[in-house]
Amino acid sequence: MQNDEQEIRELVATWMAATRAGDTEKLLSLMADDVVFLLPGQPPMIGKSTFASAAKAHSNRQTQFDGTGEIQEIQVLGDWAFMWTQLSVVVTQPGNATPMTRAGHTLSILKKQNGKWVLARDANMLAPVG
Amino acid sequence: MQNDEQEIRELVATWMAATRAGDTEKLLSLMADDVVFLLPGQPPMIGKSTFASAAKAHSNRQTQFDGTGEIQEIQVLGDWAFMWTQLSVVVTQPGNATPMTRAGHTLSILKKQNGKWVLARDANMLAPVG
Repeated sequence: MQNDEQEIRELVATWMAATRAGDTEKLLSLMADDVVFLLPGQPPMIGKSTFASAAKAHSNRQTQFDGTGEIQEIQVLGDWAFMWTQLSVVVTQPGNATPMTRAGHTLSILKKQNGKWVLARDANMLAPVG
Repeated sequence: MQNDEQEIRELVATWMAATRAGDTEKLLSLMADDVVFLLPGQPPMIGKSTFASAAKAHSNRQTQFDGTGEIQEIQVLGDWAFMWTQLSVVVTQPGNATPMTRAGHTLSILKKQNGKWVLARDANMLAPVG
């Protein structure tokens, strides 16, 4: 359990670093094939390939993301886990003078796949601030 | 597992009926003491007593809720489970001519406590529509 929790914390740190670096390949390696991202006011984003398309669109627009977060809770349930995180993400569009900050909470389901933790479901409740 | 899934579906049906009826006591019986409700743009609502206070405020204002939903996924993980639901909730404030509809998704964590499933964590991504 202790190791699993540590591995999940490392997954989060790697995710944040890959987001900052715009490293889509790395992000894709951190999620399950059938991953589901849920957001307010948007249809669910289902599957790795959907994430990849969205990431490509951001990359084409040279959108930059920089996030900081604090894990509020991790519960390991065998080969599954859930995690509650408080996040703040600064989104910068080139040509736009003012970066936009979104902050709030996420609730995520993770699973252990071939001995490696990956993101399986993600509920994103970040809202614009400032 | 089959029975657990059935019991969770019944919990959802009971939750919806209690919401329509404004039956706060019933709702409180369906959640864990340390329940956490996460919403966009709001601080987390932690614990049964916080839910009870919020429900009382709604009740004092005679706010009415009517929801319909469709369960997208239930995964039972021993004494824990997670559930993804698509929901639509109509909120009516007395004196306000137009009811407000909020729609979207929830991701919930449930746990089995003394042989009974209760809500433990809830990520609510409903957004205003129409």
